[in-house]
Amino acid sequence: MDYHAISLKDKFERFSDHWAPRVIAEMNDYQFKLARIQGTFVWHRHVDTDEVFIVIEGAMRIEFRDGSVELRAGELFVVPRGVEHRPWAESECRIMLVEPRGVVNTGEAGGELTAAGDVWI
Amino acid sequence: MDYHAISLKDKFERFSDHWAPRVIAEMNDYQFKLARIQGTFVWHRHVDTDEVFIVIEGAMRIEFRDGSVELRAGELFVVPRGVEHRPWAESECRIMLVEPRGVVNTGEAGGELTAAGDVWI
Repeated sequence: MDYHAISLKDKFERFSDHWAPRVIAEMNDYQFKLARIQGTFVWHRHVDTDEVFIVIEGAMRIEFRDGSVELRAGELFVVPRGVEHRPWAESECRIMLVEPRGVVNTGEAGGELTAAGDVWI
Repeated sequence: MDYHAISLKDKFERFSDHWAPRVIAEMNDYQFKLARIQGTFVWHRHVDTDEVFIVIEGAMRIEFRDGSVELRAGELFVVPRGVEHRPWAESECRIMLVEPRGVVNTGEAGGELTAAGDVWI
């Protein structure tokens, strides 16, 4: 049978918009998503799940109500469930997200940056 | 509050043995583990779960009974639940695994390469 690796670099070349996660793989009921981000996202939280950020290229910050964390390429952070956070990147940053299938990017906050369901690439 | 990113590179420097995964983070009931691998692992499968391999540095192959897949740095592969596989690396390779808490590295196969429970770094 033919088995193929998933190249993050190749997948990132397939889209260019910001704050619009693309699904690249599923493991059980979890998804691996890629996103290009730049600028300031909305404050939001995911009441039912933790969310993993892994920076693939560039740098970003995740702001919390009581602090923040800086992430560079090769670094990972787990945002605990229920914790309000606001991702931010000065320059374009490429990230991988890991979270359960069905998680909405803006959590409970909604708004114009809300992604419309799963988009696979 | 103080929030700290998890640096994969820093974590890899904290151990040197092969085929002995270290836990670096948890998301809900899933774990992110790092492993240094070299040579041939045992044939095994995980009957209850998929398993994600992400190559951080180097290259590896995952053999299946009916084929194989080559993975290089920046590439990802999901081994489906129940599928027999045998990881292999010619030179030392650094990988990240994502799987549910409690998964045993040798699956149902057991043997001397079986890791003894969670080791956090």
